[in-house]
Amino acid sequence: MSYDPNNIFATILKGDMPCHKVYEDETALVMMDIFPQSKGHTLVIPKAASRNLLDADPAALSALMPLVQRVAQAVKAATNADGVRLAQFNEAPAGQTVFHLHFHLIPVYEGVALGAHAGGRANDAELAALAKDIGAHI
Amino acid sequence: MSYDPNNIFATILKGDMPCHKVYEDETALVMMDIFPQSKGHTLVIPKAASRNLLDADPAALSALMPLVQRVAQAVKAATNADGVRLAQFNEAPAGQTVFHLHFHLIPVYEGVALGAHAGGRANDAELAALAKDIGAHI
Repeated sequence: MSYDPNNIFATILKGDMPCHKVYEDETALVMMDIFPQSKGHTLVIPKAASRNLLDADPAALSALMPLVQRVAQAVKAATNADGVRLAQFNEAPAGQTVFHLHFHLIPVYEGVALGAHAGGRANDAELAALAKDIGAHI
Repeated sequence: MSYDPNNIFATILKGDMPCHKVYEDETALVMMDIFPQSKGHTLVIPKAASRNLLDADPAALSALMPLVQRVAQAVKAATNADGVRLAQFNEAPAGQTVFHLHFHLIPVYEGVALGAHAGGRANDAELAALAKDIGAHI
């Protein structure tokens, strides 16, 4: 399995496509998932190129995880969610749809079932507001 | 939210309860999930005490992730799965049932739906064989 440098997240990282940016530093971009499973569904995307967890540079993973934690904390604080799921999919049968490593942080609200990822594109104004709120907590 | 040192994974880490051990080093224990969502469902449990991702020591997370990757690779190699899901749940509404940080690595097989976590306890002989096979790939 190889890395396709024209995948959509690589295109966003290059600045050739817009996103609802939450945070960015030298190692990663954090943005809203535009097909959210719940309100506040956020993605952490390392800038280092890898298809998924299986071929990633171990040092890049080590560098990334404290940010994944900070985003989990920020998502929970900004949304007042009752819990947060971390998910990361490797290869299409496992649910991977974009083949650049990314971590999902999905807020969970008591009594509210998670939606399907393909449940529909979220409203841009709502995503922009969430990106700002979550970013303010990072 | 506080850490209860008598949770079942702490008890296993102390050696006061058995498990189907895949691998162990100074920082973590890897074992089979006895209520697997698929054949080969494996858990990576850091030895450092934290309730979940939200209160973990960032340095412990950095130290752990290369092992999480190696276990993902080993699970895929040992089971010939078509993909692997990484999942980690924070607080009960998100699906957390044991309140000591742990990472799920769940093999996914093309055309086979994942089972419910509470789908039933797996056969001990099968778990022992899987633990040995996956451990041999780490």
